[in-house]
Amino acid sequence: MQCSLCSSKAVYYQRHSSRHLCKKHFLRDFYRRVKRAVAKYKMIESGDKIALAMSGGKDSVTLAHTLIELYGKRRDLEFFAITIDEGIEGYRPPTVEIAKKVCRDLGIEHVVVSFREEIGLDLDEMVERGSRNACTYCGVFRKYLLNRTARELGATKLATGHNLDDETQTILLNFLNADIERLARLIPQRVQKGLVYRIKPLREIYEKEVVVYAIINNLPVSLEECPYSRFPARALVRDFIYEFEKKYPGRKFSIMRSFEELLPCLHKMYPQVELGECKICGEPTAREICKACELKRELGII
Amino acid sequence: MQCSLCSSKAVYYQRHSSRHLCKKHFLRDFYRRVKRAVAKYKMIESGDKIALAMSGGKDSVTLAHTLIELYGKRRDLEFFAITIDEGIEGYRPPTVEIAKKVCRDLGIEHVVVSFREEIGLDLDEMVERGSRNACTYCGVFRKYLLNRTARELGATKLATGHNLDDETQTILLNFLNADIERLARLIPQRVQKGLVYRIKPLREIYEKEVVVYAIINNLPVSLEECPYSRFPARALVRDFIYEFEKKYPGRKFSIMRSFEELLPCLHKMYPQVELGECKICGEPTAREICKACELKRELGII
Repeated sequence: MQCSLCSSKAVYYQRHSSRHLCKKHFLRDFYRRVKRAVAKYKMIESGDKIALAMSGGKDSVTLAHTLIELYGKRRDLEFFAITIDEGIEGYRPPTVEIAKKVCRDLGIEHVVVSFREEIGLDLDEMVERGSRNACTYCGVFRKYLLNRTARELGATKLATGHNLDDETQTILLNFLNADIERLARLIPQRVQKGLVYRIKPLREIYEKEVVVYAIINNLPVSLEECPYSRFPARALVRDFIYEFEKKYPGRKFSIMRSFEELLPCLHKMYPQVELGECKICGEPTAREICKACELKRELGII
Repeated sequence: MQCSLCSSKAVYYQRHSSRHLCKKHFLRDFYRRVKRAVAKYKMIESGDKIALAMSGGKDSVTLAHTLIELYGKRRDLEFFAITIDEGIEGYRPPTVEIAKKVCRDLGIEHVVVSFREEIGLDLDEMVERGSRNACTYCGVFRKYLLNRTARELGATKLATGHNLDDETQTILLNFLNADIERLARLIPQRVQKGLVYRIKPLREIYEKEVVVYAIINNLPVSLEECPYSRFPARALVRDFIYEFEKKYPGRKFSIMRSFEELLPCLHKMYPQVELGECKICGEPTAREICKACELKRELGII
């Protein structure tokens, strides 16, 4: 099949635009949409030091590669990567290696922070010892360590690899669960003391396009799934959006547009509260004791 | 199976509350929820003359029966029913008969208004003559005639049988289509000149419960589908909500709660415009010529 824009061989059929795209035009479109999303939310500004959350999965590897391609030569920007090693036997070690290789290839500094060293236990041990499910421990401690590490290393932004599929699933799931407050928090309203501002440069990029980008650029990504992964509600929503998008291409963008149109209202309905400091660890929290310290207590670590 | 609230035989399992309900307790719960919805949106107020849109389908028949049961004895309220005969061969005549019988049984006045007499053509003829799909003609002319007839007969409210399933499908569909304006219009902000205020007393009642109500009360309802019916997008959304509700009972309520929480914002984003009069027919419209007259012109009726 030929590219819809030139005579080269197409590598991708973009359903939402009904275009076949060659490698060059795929990348041009991909970069254009990343830059547009970055500009729309002022994700990257002169003087920024950007920490990349780098799991070694397809999204984070593509994110790092894309940002370095687009902004790596800018003198007024700095990039480095943080990998959190949760301690998941079999699954995590190879992805840490991928993350290391990617950062070496891209020439960016790379910091690996482990649950074992920073929290005191591997995720596998937490699951054995505690009563919560793995995703609770993982989510809380991972975000905790990403933010603390980014801030301590002077980052002004923390970039994650969430793509259009992730975002639309989260939007719809929050809507279905009547969790409008969580919907409002999906995009932070402003910088909060102690919290590095989160950005998601791939939020307008289909998951499929992330995979194609990784393949085109020969990026060493792991497509393995976390052994703890199980989100039955999210899976239902994901499958539905997939079916809907298949029949009505572009609907993932529509979901994003709905969310964005509502966002100013959402922010008014749920204004960001002023954060204090956790009484135990000093990290930012809206409560007396932060969620990470609460979980640590439950696990008998503190 | 025994009722969860008394020793009678259960006739219905209410998944969202995990209760088996006997006839008495089913009806008690049903009426309580209708009354609560009516109160929340001030759907029925002293002095109201309420026109019931009565197709003869399960929803409208249940609506009429319910409202007469709950409010029929009130001296400060009046009820009458309007049936629109679109002129759909095979499908509509038996439902018109059902509507007549229901109104006779309930002792309420009943008016039948036909497309043929009021617009000039049957729906079947419009479809043959015009280029639009049946649902466009039907939707526009039905709403036009319902509103005009209700208003001319002095109605202060126009009640339709939309149930929780209908409403949540519409909400989600508008969200998925990024049609936030239509979402905002789902509940009118205030009375508009020339438009009878629409109310939906069954909006908190599951479709399944509407069917059970009709069976319990031995109501003569038609469960046949309109031969023109085809909403592939709505069907996808309906199936998804069904699956989601099956796995997480009560989620239809959550969708409704999300919508209601957003509603004040939606109304601020899309304030209701002042309506003028159609230059041709004088009916209320936001444009020069109303949609009904536009379609009539296309069909060569005017």
